[in-house]
Formats: sequence, C-alpha cells, structure tokens
Amino acid sequence: MKNFKDMELAERAAMSPREARELFRAGQVLPTAGISAGYAQANLMIVPQELAFDVLLFAQRNPKSCPILGVLEAGQTSSELLAGGDIRTDVPKYLVYENGIKVAEPTDLGDYWRDDLVTFIVGCSFTFEAALMESGISVAHIDQGVNVPMYKTNRRSATAGAISGPMVVSMRPIPASQVADAVRITSRYPAVHGAPVHIGNPGELGIEDLAAPDFGDAVQIPEGSIPVFWACGVTPQAAVMESRPALAIGHAPGHMLITDIRDTEYQVP
Amino acid sequence: MKNFKDMELAERAAMSPREARELFRAGQVLPTAGISAGYAQANLMIVPQELAFDVLLFAQRNPKSCPILGVLEAGQTSSELLAGGDIRTDVPKYLVYENGIKVAEPTDLGDYWRDDLVTFIVGCSFTFEAALMESGISVAHIDQGVNVPMYKTNRRSATAGAISGPMVVSMRPIPASQVADAVRITSRYPAVHGAPVHIGNPGELGIEDLAAPDFGDAVQIPEGSIPVFWACGVTPQAAVMESRPALAIGHAPGHMLITDIRDTEYQVP
Repeated sequence: MKNFKDMELAERAAMSPREARELFRAGQVLPTAGISAGYAQANLMIVPQELAFDVLLFAQRNPKSCPILGVLEAGQTSSELLAGGDIRTDVPKYLVYENGIKVAEPTDLGDYWRDDLVTFIVGCSFTFEAALMESGISVAHIDQGVNVPMYKTNRRSATAGAISGPMVVSMRPIPASQVADAVRITSRYPAVHGAPVHIGNPGELGIEDLAAPDFGDAVQIPEGSIPVFWACGVTPQAAVMESRPALAIGHAPGHMLITDIRDTEYQVP
Repeated sequence: MKNFKDMELAERAAMSPREARELFRAGQVLPTAGISAGYAQANLMIVPQELAFDVLLFAQRNPKSCPILGVLEAGQTSSELLAGGDIRTDVPKYLVYENGIKVAEPTDLGDYWRDDLVTFIVGCSFTFEAALMESGISVAHIDQGVNVPMYKTNRRSATAGAISGPMVVSMRPIPASQVADAVRITSRYPAVHGAPVHIGNPGELGIEDLAAPDFGDAVQIPEGSIPVFWACGVTPQAAVMESRPALAIGHAPGHMLITDIRDTEYQVP
C-alpha cells in the first residue's frame, strides 16, 4: 500500500478521492489540503437521530455557513459522495464530543458508531481556493503551509430548536486591488459558502486579535492586504457543541472528507 | 369588516397580506390568486415532529420542487413570513389527511392542531407569474380564470427516510417564440421552483392527457404554444401522502398562504 509520507506533493494531488480515502481507512493520518486536487473536501457533523431535525433546520436557516452537500440517514454509512467508501473510517481524524466536551480524537469511529447516527456532509471553502489561485489571487495560509485561521464572531447564527451558536468565519488576507475579484470569484460557489460575509474590519465581528484564531492557525497578513471573512463550515459544529448533546462527532480541523464531486460542479455561471 | 365578495379585483390586489390573512382568519374562503399582488404566496405542509426530519431532508434533496421559504417548529404558529398571523387560521382552506386519506377540508385547524406539528412553508410558482406577465408573456390559466393544471409525472423524487413520491409539475402553455424568455425569466427565481424541468413533450413525463390534470384545472392550449413544465410545490404533499402518516395537513389547491415577503425578494440577478 502507498504511504502519503513517501509521496511527492504532485503525487498526492493526483490521487483519486477513492484512493486517498482507502489510505485514510487503513489508518494513515494527515491533513487533507493538497490531496486529490480538484475534488471537493467537506466538513462532517454526525449526531443522533433525535437531534437530526434541529441540525438540518439549522443548516436550512444558515445556508451560507452550513451548505449541505449530502446527508447520510441513520444506518447509512456511504453515498455517491464517497462511492465505495465508509464514513466511519474514510476521514483521517475525527473529534468525538460527549455532552459538548471533546473526549477523543480517533482515526476511525469503530468504538463510537451507533445505528441511530445521522451524518451531515457540509461544504468547505477549500473548494473555491483553487479558483482563487487560478485567477492569480494567492491564498496566504497555503503559501505559508498552515491551516486556514477561523474565528468565532459576535454574530449569532439563526437558532433552530436546541441548536444555537456563533457564526464562525474563515479569514484570508487579500491584496486590496484583488478584493473585488475575490468576491466575484467566490460568489460563484454558493454551495461552498459563496461570497464573503465581511471585508476589512475584524473588530466589527468581535474579533480582537487576528493572530489568535479560535480554530486553525494564524497567518501573516502581507503589507497592503485586507482581511476578508467567509462563513465557515465549522459553524454547525460550534453550535451543536453549545447544545451539549450526549454524543456528536465532527472531523478534526483540516482533516476533511474528500468527496468524489469535482470542485467545478459547485460553480454556478 | 371587509368582504372579498364586495371588492373589485383591483381592491383585492391592493390589500396588504396582513389584511388578507385577517379576512381568511375570520372565515372568508376563496382562492388566493390575485390577492395582495406582489407578495409571495406559498404551499403548506404540516406534519408531526416525528416525520419532520424526513420532510426537511426530502426538501433538501428535491430543491426544485420543494424550495423551503420557512419552517415553524413544533409549538410555533407564526413567524416573520406571516407577521402577527397564525398558521392555524390564516389560510383560506386546508386539507387534512389521516393515514394518507383526505378526511376534511376545514377553514381553520382548531379541531386538528397539536403542539407537536411542524409547518413547512414551500415556495410557489405563482411568484414568477407576475414577472412573466410583465415581460409580455401571458399566463393561460390566469387569462382563462382557472387554477394552474398540475400533473403527477413518471419521475420519482429523491427519497428521504419514509418519504417518497412522484415529481409533480405545473404546466403553462407558452408561445414558441417566448419559451426561451420564459426559461430566462423563471431561472431568476430559484427559490420558487426556478427554470422549467421539461419543455414540450408531456409523454416523456408520463403525462398522457394534458386535458386531465391530477390537480387544478385543465387549460386551453393556444395554437402555436408549447407546454412548459415547472417543478411544483404540491410534490411534498404527494410524497407525504404516499407514506400515509397518521396526520398530515396541507393547503387546499389554489388556497395558499399569503406571506409578507415581496416576490422580488426571491429574484436573483
């Protein structure tokens, strides 16, 4: 079996999603950025059936932060988003929460899976980063080799049943002359967060220090760049945690589900 | 109190949604076409909480036929879609189904309401008809003073849990020279069914006789017009009925919820 650690970056990028998932299923663990280039990566939110309506309604009411790419119903462990795959094993690393507290970071869900669990597969802004780069807009966290910085904001998401929480945003510093282009390009990807929710003033979102993100890593902001904020797929995880369900499972930051859907399929004209 | 029957058509068109809902609440009954012009009218689907996840997932998987404008959670009877209103009384006529069989057509839900009922407010193609007419495309069923014809097709909606059924379409005959315009105009209203799902060949949808719609009324097809089919908000009702829940409630055909949201708010650039 191949090993990610022995591969050149180009080889990782050229892997099929199915091949990448098989290596994760075999227990290899690494962040998914740069693997299977051109295929959509996704956030995970797994909750018991009794909470599933509230989570789906939360997504319906907060479509910019929670674009649903697919739902695996209770008892279902695969779908056309991960053909031949298994949601319990095919993500490199998971986070398990009990009563809102993280209790484990397993590489598969064998010890935690129950047949009443419902899986929400949520779009991720990684999908539009390739389109930004193709247009000559550099993506700082990729250039700097770190995870995208994410921040809890002072804005509340729309509540749904027991689920309520802050809007979480990801931030990319964009050269002032390219901010309009970044808006235009990302607005063509409404299924993966779409246009920015805020441009230029972190204080107004209640973000005091860009160097201290709540999730992911800090990035250096190049001279002349403006911080641009997009709604983030970690938002449903943050909200579900606030409601402290007996069990909830997400992906570990940066360790996403690699789907069989091409990024371009989420582009609108 | 005003009475619809004493009003000129222009007076009905000029009523505010709130005022119209008050007359329905007081027990007046008539189809809502032409009332509160410029405001979105909507389909209703009301089910017990235990079926709510399946219905919302059905809508998520069938967005063209089931565009959700809003959801009233269990115990909730109003929202910003019907400010100051009450979903149990403000629709002119309801259909009540028990085990998939229609058992009543009440003008309010006093005898049927339960606190575990969840209400889905679903977009309706009436919303784009004004835009068609403003562009000089006449709408046959309005010209002919009847309800829009609706047909069950041979296409199945995507299944969600216990909910599965045929895609239902509405049909408008459009002059051949204006079909492209009708596509262009309605595609700007994705939240209310958007572009047509089929143009010109009813047989391919399994519709044998356009003169015998499954819901609504037949329309005369003018010489030189092509039948154009849009996904219809009756689709979730048809699907829920197939699953024969103990209780389900919809609106009576043509007797819609008049919302406070302007049609134009559902238009995209």
